[in-house]
Amino acid sequence: MKKLKVGILAATGSVGQRFVEHLIDHPWFEIGALTGSSRTAGRPYGEGVHWLLDGDVPAEVADMIVQSTKPNLDVDLIFSALPTSEALETEAAFAAAGYPVLTNASPYRMHDQVPLLIPEVNPQHTQLIPHQQEVQGWDGFIVANANCSTTSIVLPLKILQDIFGLQSAVVTTMQAISGAGYPGVSSMDIIDNIVPYIKNEDKKLESEPRKIMGKFSGGLIDFAPVKISAQANRVPVIDGHMGSVSAKLGQKVSVEEVIDCLEHWQGPEILRELPTTPKPALIYRWEPDRPQPKLDRMAGHGLAWTVGKVRECPVLDIRFMCIAHNTLRGAASGSVLNAELLVKQGYIPHPAVKTIKKPVAAD
Amino acid sequence: MKKLKVGILAATGSVGQRFVEHLIDHPWFEIGALTGSSRTAGRPYGEGVHWLLDGDVPAEVADMIVQSTKPNLDVDLIFSALPTSEALETEAAFAAAGYPVLTNASPYRMHDQVPLLIPEVNPQHTQLIPHQQEVQGWDGFIVANANCSTTSIVLPLKILQDIFGLQSAVVTTMQAISGAGYPGVSSMDIIDNIVPYIKNEDKKLESEPRKIMGKFSGGLIDFAPVKISAQANRVPVIDGHMGSVSAKLGQKVSVEEVIDCLEHWQGPEILRELPTTPKPALIYRWEPDRPQPKLDRMAGHGLAWTVGKVRECPVLDIRFMCIAHNTLRGAASGSVLNAELLVKQGYIPHPAVKTIKKPVAAD
Amino acid sequence: MKKLKVGILAATGSVGQRFVEHLIDHPWFEIGALTGSSRTAGRPYGEGVHWLLDGDVPAEVADMIVQSTKPNLDVDLIFSALPTSEALETEAAFAAAGYPVLTNASPYRMHDQVPLLIPEVNPQHTQLIPHQQEVQGWDGFIVANANCSTTSIVLPLKILQDIFGLQSAVVTTMQAISGAGYPGVSSMDIIDNIVPYIKNEDKKLESEPRKIMGKFSGGLIDFAPVKISAQANRVPVIDGHMGSVSAKLGQKVSVEEVIDCLEHWQGPEILRELPTTPKPALIYRWEPDRPQPKLDRMAGHGLAWTVGKVRECPVLDIRFMCIAHNTLRGAASGSVLNAELLVKQGYIPHPAVKTIKKPVAAD
Amino acid sequence: MKKLKVGILAATGSVGQRFVEHLIDHPWFEIGALTGSSRTAGRPYGEGVHWLLDGDVPAEVADMIVQSTKPNLDVDLIFSALPTSEALETEAAFAAAGYPVLTNASPYRMHDQVPLLIPEVNPQHTQLIPHQQEVQGWDGFIVANANCSTTSIVLPLKILQDIFGLQSAVVTTMQAISGAGYPGVSSMDIIDNIVPYIKNEDKKLESEPRKIMGKFSGGLIDFAPVKISAQANRVPVIDGHMGSVSAKLGQKVSVEEVIDCLEHWQGPEILRELPTTPKPALIYRWEPDRPQPKLDRMAGHGLAWTVGKVRECPVLDIRFMCIAHNTLRGAASGSVLNAELLVKQGYIPHPAVKTIKKPVAAD
Repeated sequence: MKKLKVGILAATGSVGQRFVEHLIDHPWFEIGALTGSSRTAGRPYGEGVHWLLDGDVPAEVADMIVQSTKPNLDVDLIFSALPTSEALETEAAFAAAGYPVLTNASPYRMHDQVPLLIPEVNPQHTQLIPHQQEVQGWDGFIVANANCSTTSIVLPLKILQDIFGLQSAVVTTMQAISGAGYPGVSSMDIIDNIVPYIKNEDKKLESEPRKIMGKFSGGLIDFAPVKISAQANRVPVIDGHMGSVSAKLGQKVSVEEVIDCLEHWQGPEILRELPTTPKPALIYRWEPDRPQPKLDRMAGHGLAWTVGKVRECPVLDIRFMCIAHNTLRGAASGSVLNAELLVKQGYIPHPAVKTIKKPVAAD
Repeated sequence: MKKLKVGILAATGSVGQRFVEHLIDHPWFEIGALTGSSRTAGRPYGEGVHWLLDGDVPAEVADMIVQSTKPNLDVDLIFSALPTSEALETEAAFAAAGYPVLTNASPYRMHDQVPLLIPEVNPQHTQLIPHQQEVQGWDGFIVANANCSTTSIVLPLKILQDIFGLQSAVVTTMQAISGAGYPGVSSMDIIDNIVPYIKNEDKKLESEPRKIMGKFSGGLIDFAPVKISAQANRVPVIDGHMGSVSAKLGQKVSVEEVIDCLEHWQGPEILRELPTTPKPALIYRWEPDRPQPKLDRMAGHGLAWTVGKVRECPVLDIRFMCIAHNTLRGAASGSVLNAELLVKQGYIPHPAVKTIKKPVAAD
Repeated sequence: MKKLKVGILAATGSVGQRFVEHLIDHPWFEIGALTGSSRTAGRPYGEGVHWLLDGDVPAEVADMIVQSTKPNLDVDLIFSALPTSEALETEAAFAAAGYPVLTNASPYRMHDQVPLLIPEVNPQHTQLIPHQQEVQGWDGFIVANANCSTTSIVLPLKILQDIFGLQSAVVTTMQAISGAGYPGVSSMDIIDNIVPYIKNEDKKLESEPRKIMGKFSGGLIDFAPVKISAQANRVPVIDGHMGSVSAKLGQKVSVEEVIDCLEHWQGPEILRELPTTPKPALIYRWEPDRPQPKLDRMAGHGLAWTVGKVRECPVLDIRFMCIAHNTLRGAASGSVLNAELLVKQGYIPHPAVKTIKKPVAAD
Repeated sequence: MKKLKVGILAATGSVGQRFVEHLIDHPWFEIGALTGSSRTAGRPYGEGVHWLLDGDVPAEVADMIVQSTKPNLDVDLIFSALPTSEALETEAAFAAAGYPVLTNASPYRMHDQVPLLIPEVNPQHTQLIPHQQEVQGWDGFIVANANCSTTSIVLPLKILQDIFGLQSAVVTTMQAISGAGYPGVSSMDIIDNIVPYIKNEDKKLESEPRKIMGKFSGGLIDFAPVKISAQANRVPVIDGHMGSVSAKLGQKVSVEEVIDCLEHWQGPEILRELPTTPKPALIYRWEPDRPQPKLDRMAGHGLAWTVGKVRECPVLDIRFMCIAHNTLRGAASGSVLNAELLVKQGYIPHPAVKTIKKPVAAD
């Protein structure tokens, strides 16, 4: 089967490496270009990269020459792991040049016309794309990933919202060091310690879910009327962001009903057609000491959410613990899944994939 | 100055060692007896103990022979680090035999007639003692420490309650491994991990503060009408329990007012007369990334609370982060401070300490 | 293809779980019985086990009823993860009852008639088996694994011995916590710490390699005349034992020659016929900062050795760093590879595997 | 008593902070100037510093204005925590301007005329100073600290050399993250890992001890004829460098004799006159599992060495484990002790300290 060629921007960084890892042997995509900074451009990828993942740089890309990050790549779509400071301008240039851009960076996340996409949660938000192209005058487009901490809590919240209504949530996160990239967090700051501060993270946790859980309507997203209070913490865990959540729902409901909803939740139908979809996407654990980062982060190849400890909350209504893998579900792999959705929906044409024409989901 | 002789029950365990460490060179007390299980009784303390603290077993106690835990010790008061399973019966036996017993164990914490004492929070609860002695027919008495996680959050909550009223609090704790004693938490369970479960801890966090913040009235404690929701987590930190708290107050109040109250809070006057009182007992940190266990747990020689990040809570009213040292403030040193208060109040007679006769505080 | 049925003794422990993990989907073997202590026997495996590995108890064994550890299992061979205290008697009982027993325990390692087997190093030592059966009067037999720390250093030492001669080695190990089983090392002892003591480990490191590198001759193993000095340390690493080695060789040799030998080393030919053989079994890394436990322990699915930093030693001749995965290569997976070798050599009959009749290797 | 004023160069870094911590309340010295880079110069120290140690910036220096690092400070001597790249030129400028400079940086360590000083080991090497001043034409002078890993092993080696003769040593170190400064080692590189590489460290470990253990003779140091082989490793420990050492001695000797020498070693007499001297400077631990970084690094307020596990080495003669605190003994506090020695020897005039005129030690 013919594959689409993808370009990975900032491919040598920690998220860039996760893209490389995931896209080796992908059934629909193949790596056509890797870009890097002036330090690495022009050199083989295997030489320029400080490889952080298990084992070696994959042989398939070790000799690929790293290119400059300019919108002249011979590829069909772009995965961007650019740092915030470069993403705004560079990603727009790629979109203007006709590329679909799947970004992990933050600048476009809260942009009116950019879907903040998690296929399990809001696949219908891709309807913003034509509107984005028209307003911006772009041939391509930008679709953003949520922040990795947002991602870890938003699927269970969305399920609660859909079924019981959701008014507010008090959230404390315990976030892994890999979320800060490389070199990221100094070992002097985090061994035997917790740092109750991640720049801008609380703000993202309080705003992004409201967009993701919002309604597409009239070419815009109506933000969900949910109040979130977040206190983000960095903890000495390598991978996996954990959330401790108390939520106020729209109705009285028993713990059993909530667990039942989570356990039997079926995502949007279109998900079943995507090669990377975890099955199931949400795992409910009954043990009193789960979820745990070390045990649950790799569930569904790092793409599934794990939720546990649903109990009554003496202050709000319901509380629970949840986890998702921050650099897989919350970054690179989540972006690849977004691209798969866009292929299936026809926004990224693929000669060998049959698209689903009808509206993807009632909103 | 003549000192009171103290006995430490279960002196070889992790909390027992903290008692030893604290009581070396104490101005009012001196170690008169160390007890242990049948494994260690009869041997010199320095041989029987697996010393967990910095450096060596203090020379002052290394050769002291460990005794059996029986109420025939030649001491004036008792510090108990007994495990839960033995505390109920043994501590009662000591109280019956006339000893004041300062316990870290849980069985008597929620007992009607036993003060659950933190001198900064509820020094007037010691008025339960005569009532306890009368009902139980004991010559001695029992005074309990709060659970170490309760301790870490209860002083800031009490200050809020006193000044603004407190209706409810949603709490997530991140608790140190030393809280589980020794050997306690397996390294296989906690390195690169978080465990969202500590047996009975949520229940203690939700009930103990209500007693501690309650009103002494008519020989009993009227529990404070505060609702607490707690999710306790074990994290790979050696010492220091951290709390992430959102609170609903009795009135609208600004962040500045709350910080002002915390920064300028003065504990009950009697505290100033106690040799171990930290000065100040509560430290407010203005930095956005404090408190942190590694940096703040030893504040006030491990006896002070550190609070930071007071901000508006979008869901309730106010949120903040706080920390206290779990085996010092939350265990051994807290117990010693309790004993100092009891000396000062006259419940434990000390030939060289002038007591304060008048009621310790209006309630 | 028909598979041999295997029984795993002490299947609920940490090594037992690694056996289960490895044997799911094995091409030659299938799990026919799991045994446990009186606490777990009679219950489904999924209930009795405290699962330590990623994800869940595999569905294939979750409902299998744990049996008592008695030599009446309906299986063709035995993998033993028994503790030292039980292994001596129980493993002999199984061998006497006709089972081939592949053991991870220590009691039989230095036994005259028991092969201490690492297929890459001494496949010809299996010739001890007939002698063992004759002397003991057993229908079955016992074959032992080396200690996990021995395993981590012995392959590079054997290659040096074969090509240049080996007189002595000074070894310091840095060993992972998983080597101590579960609960094993207390987190209080090892976070932010190193413990320079593992019971009996130095002795094993100094004696086992001499047997493994010895010559089979006249029905016995002539120990290799190599002197080893070992200082074993426990470090806060989850998996992977690292060795720092300085060696005195039988001849002068350049660093380049040593590296060349390691890089181009081909194991015994018979290895290529075994399904679990890592390819290559030894990886030489040229980077100055490798090997590292986190990056190299999973090489070859946890079965390969990684060696790096070969340099001249100013005191002896040659020094290097090496690593192997302690619970995979050094325990369960190593044992499974041993069983594969025994099948291929015909010591364990398998209807679907063609044996290699001729002597497996010149000694 | 009048105190000498000291200036701390690069006072905001991790070693600079240790100088500040140690010099608060020093009986002979007081902090007169703190210098920093252009980022911090001109601002109060408490604002410019990212404080890494327990608690707060000491009140005594919090408001002191950070100065530029130029040789016009109103102080009597200089402690330098400058980075390697600046030390060469800047420290020479201070020495030329008349200041005694006590440096932690590496450029002058192996310089012919610069003492590489550890008071317990080679106090007589200060006799290089007049020669240094003559050759360089400086009114002041430079005295260097050893590298922190060298420090951790060199005292026990020197004692062996003095008493039994020392021919060679094979050393593996396990070094703490604080040795790399701040931010230093990325948490991504070191949690659950070991890195067998620290730039230039092996070379320093193999050369510096030969100078430190050398003989002052004819205005120069004759290097000790000792061969050292070192493999340095970074481990996830916060403070404390541990060495695993095997040594070849000049004569046959029993383990008991070696331990006896270490236990009863008395340093040079002049040490007893220095206020910071640890008593004892070397602690021998008999337990089989000591020394350990967490338990032994703070021995002697972080200035003592701890040695343990002296045993016969099957390859060389004797082996042992040793530890010293890398940022205290191996850096700031070691430097302060050097300054005290220089005061006592009269190289740094102090109005209130009586110097010892006669040659400090036979060499």
